[in-house]
Amino acid sequence: MQFELDERLKADTILLASILEYKILLNKDSRFPWIILVPIVNGLSEMHHLSYDIQANYLKVSNLMSKVLDHIYSPHKINIASLGNIVKQLHIHHVARFEYDEAWPGPIWGVGQAIPYSQTELEHTCHLFKKTIEDINQGELNVNYHN
Amino acid sequence: MQFELDERLKADTILLASILEYKILLNKDSRFPWIILVPIVNGLSEMHHLSYDIQANYLKVSNLMSKVLDHIYSPHKINIASLGNIVKQLHIHHVARFEYDEAWPGPIWGVGQAIPYSQTELEHTCHLFKKTIEDINQGELNVNYHN
Repeated sequence: MQFELDERLKADTILLASILEYKILLNKDSRFPWIILVPIVNGLSEMHHLSYDIQANYLKVSNLMSKVLDHIYSPHKINIASLGNIVKQLHIHHVARFEYDEAWPGPIWGVGQAIPYSQTELEHTCHLFKKTIEDINQGELNVNYHN
Repeated sequence: MQFELDERLKADTILLASILEYKILLNKDSRFPWIILVPIVNGLSEMHHLSYDIQANYLKVSNLMSKVLDHIYSPHKINIASLGNIVKQLHIHHVARFEYDEAWPGPIWGVGQAIPYSQTELEHTCHLFKKTIEDINQGELNVNYHN
């Protein structure tokens, strides 16, 4: 069966890459550097229902994306969350947070209204993410944790 | 160096168990069945700064706790999050959510005021968690994902 991305995720995001059975999506809300990981598996909504292998891959992709967010934005904190109360398809947020952002120190979900990127900003942001994902991913995914 | 639990986590929670280098804490806010996992490592605030082994253990303990929450509460959704904007010590929330709970469908953090358990409720809840953790943990931690 072909993988189906939830309609709301499709509307709110842009695909940056597909790595180790995860879609890496950029949320188009410019207020927060906001990545959403979606395992390429239909019909699941809880992390613990994923197979062990896909969970192990999650760690790799999650680490990669935290490093990418660190590298581009040097945030004060990274927020990681799998909520899914509204969008049921399993998806995991990775958000770079700053002490001066709109929602700090609270969570970002349900706060205010999304502000779209301008076309130029969006193109630049996608380019920056794609390049940094590629750079950090080079030879790193299978080995590089902070050991 | 001895492990130090953050003062706010200490005040807000009760220790249920220590498994695979994680403290399993019950948040004393009775509005939500709310578990907090804390890796027994000082000075870290981001998931991707944990060693690979402790991250792999995280998956095991996280799966265990999701199964425990499913077993006791049959929730509509489990919310998992590592935020840490206020309490810097790395800790990962696992919360059983219901379509009729106070914060649904939004996140729980920063919503309303905590309501403490009564002494009897607290004792019963701790007993139930400890028993279910032990039951599900029997022989399962090293093998049982949904493969």
